[in-house]
Amino acid sequence: MYCVGIDIGGMSVKAGVVDKDGNIIKKGRVVTDVAGGAQKIVDDVAGLVKDLVDPDDRDFVGIGIGCPGAINSSTGTVDRAYNLNWENVSLAEMLARHINKPIRVSNDANVAALGETAFGVGRMYSDTVMLTLGTGVGGGIVIDNKLYEGNEGKGGELGHMVLVVDGERCSCGRRGCMEAYCSASALIRDTKKAMQADKSSAMWKTSPRLDDVDGKTAFECSKKGDKAAIAVVDNYIKFLGEGMLNFANIFRPQAIILGGGVCAQGDYLIDKLKDYCKERFYGFEGMPRFDILVAQLGNDAGIIGAAALILN
Amino acid sequence: MYCVGIDIGGMSVKAGVVDKDGNIIKKGRVVTDVAGGAQKIVDDVAGLVKDLVDPDDRDFVGIGIGCPGAINSSTGTVDRAYNLNWENVSLAEMLARHINKPIRVSNDANVAALGETAFGVGRMYSDTVMLTLGTGVGGGIVIDNKLYEGNEGKGGELGHMVLVVDGERCSCGRRGCMEAYCSASALIRDTKKAMQADKSSAMWKTSPRLDDVDGKTAFECSKKGDKAAIAVVDNYIKFLGEGMLNFANIFRPQAIILGGGVCAQGDYLIDKLKDYCKERFYGFEGMPRFDILVAQLGNDAGIIGAAALILN
Repeated sequence: MYCVGIDIGGMSVKAGVVDKDGNIIKKGRVVTDVAGGAQKIVDDVAGLVKDLVDPDDRDFVGIGIGCPGAINSSTGTVDRAYNLNWENVSLAEMLARHINKPIRVSNDANVAALGETAFGVGRMYSDTVMLTLGTGVGGGIVIDNKLYEGNEGKGGELGHMVLVVDGERCSCGRRGCMEAYCSASALIRDTKKAMQADKSSAMWKTSPRLDDVDGKTAFECSKKGDKAAIAVVDNYIKFLGEGMLNFANIFRPQAIILGGGVCAQGDYLIDKLKDYCKERFYGFEGMPRFDILVAQLGNDAGIIGAAALILN
Repeated sequence: MYCVGIDIGGMSVKAGVVDKDGNIIKKGRVVTDVAGGAQKIVDDVAGLVKDLVDPDDRDFVGIGIGCPGAINSSTGTVDRAYNLNWENVSLAEMLARHINKPIRVSNDANVAALGETAFGVGRMYSDTVMLTLGTGVGGGIVIDNKLYEGNEGKGGELGHMVLVVDGERCSCGRRGCMEAYCSASALIRDTKKAMQADKSSAMWKTSPRLDDVDGKTAFECSKKGDKAAIAVVDNYIKFLGEGMLNFANIFRPQAIILGGGVCAQGDYLIDKLKDYCKERFYGFEGMPRFDILVAQLGNDAGIIGAAALILN
């Protein structure tokens, strides 16, 4: 028994044959032909699948697809995906014209959460929250080993929980979202601000021009004891910690899984977050602790997570 | 087929025989003997049940209990309930020594959410979030007609989602929780503050002394056009609205149900909240709308909700 997991991204469409234990057996990829439109990408997906498996094989049980944007997972429709330039694309229906197998579609952040919980770092847990700390903050919720997506599959927008009413402006139109404090973009913004306020900071050595600043700048310099960098990191940990404690109070997960570029900081980041949450009783007094983990599926998360939509 | 719903409160223990449609057929109550300790209250609960039904009747399918405090619903234990002065009380196990039927225990706010969704104002919906705006802010989450309680039954603490990092101090020990802005207590605090800042406010006519201020003061005077009162109400709506939009982005419920004293304001409150959420696209652009409803089970919510633990 196996299925195909599809990871549609702005740059490439990746496909993999995944067995029931979450192992990728074979892979394929094509460049995402955004200019070609939805029909062209669907044709490419169908081609990838047919290259990898025999669509009539009984052991081939279905296709899972992870896609960026606002997805209606109950209909398999992509309501809006800015970086694909898609609006109201009936993805599952269009692909079903090529291949007669069950097809499920979900948001890429949801799919990553499911993949890490089913087959990655969270596999010993049934109830997890995953936060992807990248350009934005994506989120996914797994309850009792199943993805929780909310009405029309549009819940789980964890990055758009306001942490500071009237706070920093967010890409979504609201103010003060977690994304506006905990994304790599927010970290870079705050690093630059701190550097401009302190011309003697060691961060100017690592990044002589503000354009050189990335998500590592403050972390690397804080490890060497630079005061301004330590303040940036402490502030980042505080907002991320508060967001995680909010999710703990709401979901009481067994583990919160962190993914995305910021997690390259590994234990340095995780240890600080654990201390922050421990001092606050993992929510409030008497609450069970939750584990804090770093995602481990890396570049394969999209394929394996998409497959998990079918396998789980 | 019927069950018994038990509503344990700091003042009284209420019991009701509830049929499969959520109708209360018979009721009983006793004063909560807090001084007598847990064993005395359990004996009283058993007495109430036996007065109402024949414990051996086959049609009597179980007992649901709603209880304040931190409840471990998987074991039926009350880990801590301040106003009962209970710690680690094995409520289900103790009651099972009296009556041999399935017994389920949950937090009172969770129980209210389930009751309103199964048999109250939310009965046309399967996915709801309920917020009880009283001395604190209680919360409950219903997903696919089932209560969602999280690990150890300790999730759903919606009032303890931080809306303002470093904001107002909350009873839970953190700062800036929704409860610290949206509870009746917070509304009263803000009303008093506004009155002290504006000695000409009409609120001084309604409440000549600060001790007279209650959750209605600002609302009543804002309806008459008092500027200071309008500012208090607008601010209250803003924080409540932001909290609701957060839950919309997380859960994407079909409806958010509001309960508690503040809801006496009815349409005046609801219309303002609907406007607030509509202007913000119910979360962000393209998101499905959610209904905003006022709880309707009133004093019976505890009994009916507790019964729903068994009936659902």
